[in-house]
Amino acid sequence: MKRLDTTRTDFDTEFRKLLAERDSDTARVDGPVTEILAAVRARGDEALCEFTNRFDRTDVTPDRLRITPDEIEAACAEVAPELLDSLEVAASRIESFHKAQMPEGLRYVDQAGVTLGMRWTALDSVGLYVPGGKAAYPSSVLMNAIPARVAGVKRIAMCVPTPDGALNPLVLAAARRSGVSEIYRVGGAQAVAAMAYGTATIAPVDRVVGPGNAYVAEAKRQVFGTVGIDSIAGPSEVVVIADGNNDPRAIALDLLAQAEHDPMAQSILITPDTAMAEKVERAVATELETLPRAEIARTSWDAHGAIVIVRDLDEAADLVNTIAPEHLELMIDNPAPVFERVRHAGAIFVGRYCPEAIGDYVGGPNHVLPTSRTARFSSGLSVFDFIKRTTFIEAQAESLREIGPAAVSLAQAEGLDAHALSVSVRLAALDGAHNET
Amino acid sequence: MKRLDTTRTDFDTEFRKLLAERDSDTARVDGPVTEILAAVRARGDEALCEFTNRFDRTDVTPDRLRITPDEIEAACAEVAPELLDSLEVAASRIESFHKAQMPEGLRYVDQAGVTLGMRWTALDSVGLYVPGGKAAYPSSVLMNAIPARVAGVKRIAMCVPTPDGALNPLVLAAARRSGVSEIYRVGGAQAVAAMAYGTATIAPVDRVVGPGNAYVAEAKRQVFGTVGIDSIAGPSEVVVIADGNNDPRAIALDLLAQAEHDPMAQSILITPDTAMAEKVERAVATELETLPRAEIARTSWDAHGAIVIVRDLDEAADLVNTIAPEHLELMIDNPAPVFERVRHAGAIFVGRYCPEAIGDYVGGPNHVLPTSRTARFSSGLSVFDFIKRTTFIEAQAESLREIGPAAVSLAQAEGLDAHALSVSVRLAALDGAHNET
Repeated sequence: MKRLDTTRTDFDTEFRKLLAERDSDTARVDGPVTEILAAVRARGDEALCEFTNRFDRTDVTPDRLRITPDEIEAACAEVAPELLDSLEVAASRIESFHKAQMPEGLRYVDQAGVTLGMRWTALDSVGLYVPGGKAAYPSSVLMNAIPARVAGVKRIAMCVPTPDGALNPLVLAAARRSGVSEIYRVGGAQAVAAMAYGTATIAPVDRVVGPGNAYVAEAKRQVFGTVGIDSIAGPSEVVVIADGNNDPRAIALDLLAQAEHDPMAQSILITPDTAMAEKVERAVATELETLPRAEIARTSWDAHGAIVIVRDLDEAADLVNTIAPEHLELMIDNPAPVFERVRHAGAIFVGRYCPEAIGDYVGGPNHVLPTSRTARFSSGLSVFDFIKRTTFIEAQAESLREIGPAAVSLAQAEGLDAHALSVSVRLAALDGAHNET
Repeated sequence: MKRLDTTRTDFDTEFRKLLAERDSDTARVDGPVTEILAAVRARGDEALCEFTNRFDRTDVTPDRLRITPDEIEAACAEVAPELLDSLEVAASRIESFHKAQMPEGLRYVDQAGVTLGMRWTALDSVGLYVPGGKAAYPSSVLMNAIPARVAGVKRIAMCVPTPDGALNPLVLAAARRSGVSEIYRVGGAQAVAAMAYGTATIAPVDRVVGPGNAYVAEAKRQVFGTVGIDSIAGPSEVVVIADGNNDPRAIALDLLAQAEHDPMAQSILITPDTAMAEKVERAVATELETLPRAEIARTSWDAHGAIVIVRDLDEAADLVNTIAPEHLELMIDNPAPVFERVRHAGAIFVGRYCPEAIGDYVGGPNHVLPTSRTARFSSGLSVFDFIKRTTFIEAQAESLREIGPAAVSLAQAEGLDAHALSVSVRLAALDGAHNET
């Protein structure tokens, strides 16, 4: 963990280092992924089953690729009713927020008499990748599938690997609640290939979303263009801005909630209060003694964690704009001025009673957010990932007469004569018609 | 050119072939591009000038990279006033439409007392790539830069190569009108590298947009993640749905306006009227005798053009949904039912007086559109490319009491104990406070 202080002369250098250190070297797996994609594209279900049985130590055949409704029901029956209730709280809140997020289309007639606008329409089909094994997070299923359903996507196909044949009942319950149409027991690059290119069993989709390991990420990169993809997540981060009026243990746990995800995760506390900084540092050490995922959290905190002492909260907000963090917590008395000053962050959690974990599960907004400083130019997952715009223009004769000549002269300047003629023959016909009357 | 007829038994096979034939083989240039990016990243302006002077046969030094305000003024003075007027018609219409397109944020308090919403903010800086030489299109400058400016982007840096030192005056005039902040005389992968990584002269940007050749496209692919990029355009296409009540020459010119762009472009006429089909086919042949870009247009039309005879307009709309064309013209008496039935198209041009060339220049909506069937899952360029969303949640004590327990149980189910504790310590503090009162 690094201690930084904006009043020190080496601050800029140290702060830049803090931001740069997690860039870099993801494993190169493009070769093997290219081969897997080509095999599934060429040999369909046969290749898909081969890879699945090899990597997941299973024995599936094409007719067993799809998880049946009976299997899903049986798995859901294993889930404790209280847990299903919690899943419902999360699902209904995520659903409400994403419904509120749906945009309006646009249609108006302008001064030239041209009708113009844009129309939002849903994608026909989406493929949702869900990791298996340890990283199987039912909350991710809700966060990826519900926005697609709210957006109006009719078909949501889901692929989840079942290592050694094991199904995660809560993942299937989340899929059922989210309106997933089909679930297949396949994972890895081969699952992405099946969703992008289609096989006899799995019809192709228009967009593939969802988190995955390096092979899945590379496969998404390679199928991009054939289908749409969501952003490829890097290591994630939280910035907590805290004043002196906090329970240090609560702040420490907020930092550790990020750190326990991944050794590459980054947790940064920014505070104007030196005493609070010290208390939080001690509280982190104390929690690490008992936390089940202490090994991961300690690695992250030691290597990438930071406590930054600032002069005031304006300075804190300015640092946030440079970091552009995935998550920002405002644990301060009067959050409004800092909230207004921040321009770049994936999601903001406002107030002492709103730790980031609320947003991971039951807040309502999406927990799939831009990582690794990409909040400078990108946004979290939303209904916008599952709809697209068609713009339109409708012109009558008089409108063409008004705006057409400018199009003709620009097309001629660009040397595109058929463009110019396609407008001028219509203008000439209008003049002809006009002369005849 | 292919003639297809939906009543023939081989239609499905032939139609699939028509859609598939333009997929494939873009030149692989990743090796050289990787080297150029690494050199500019490591050696900045020095490498940038070296590549520029080698590829563009110029003699620039770092202090000459930026095109000066005087040079821009001098270039604009060369443009004919009528052409500047046409540019202004286009620019002001593009500006109006993109202003109307700006979305509202969202903020509401839900039943649990949680305040939640999302806020749109502009990117800080954008880099605009503009091709030089033959493919220098001032209209593209307007279409890329104006939405960024409307979105609120403060800094728009533009790179345009000047082969043999030549500047295109109308391109500079378009840049000035669009509010471009800085213009640099560099192109190719080296320009993309400079905008993504920054050099001593060119500060890095947050997103790179604009069309370019295979090197530029590959460079954008490789810098993606460090910065955002727009979609990478493939060969483009138009579908014209026409009834018998058209001037065949106008329809022929609409098809050729697409074909004259690129030998890989695709123009498809869909009509229920066999006589109109024949007349348009003859009109295309006639126009090709005199069209300045006949060689390109003929190559495109011969290799990729098609005339499809359909039973009725519903069938036409259904074919459009499979094609998901970049551009769709509805040259029919009653366009509304077809307009409603179409789900996938980049932009729709409605009515006989609205040829697609209107949209290329002066319509108002963007002419940068999803090509090669990607309108199934993506949209044209817009203000949405230059803003991003920050979601937020603000919870008070009572709200946390209501929704917190579900978060705790889901976090525990996912094995993320710090997540669960970050909520439960706050709930416990509330209970403690409650017990004390």
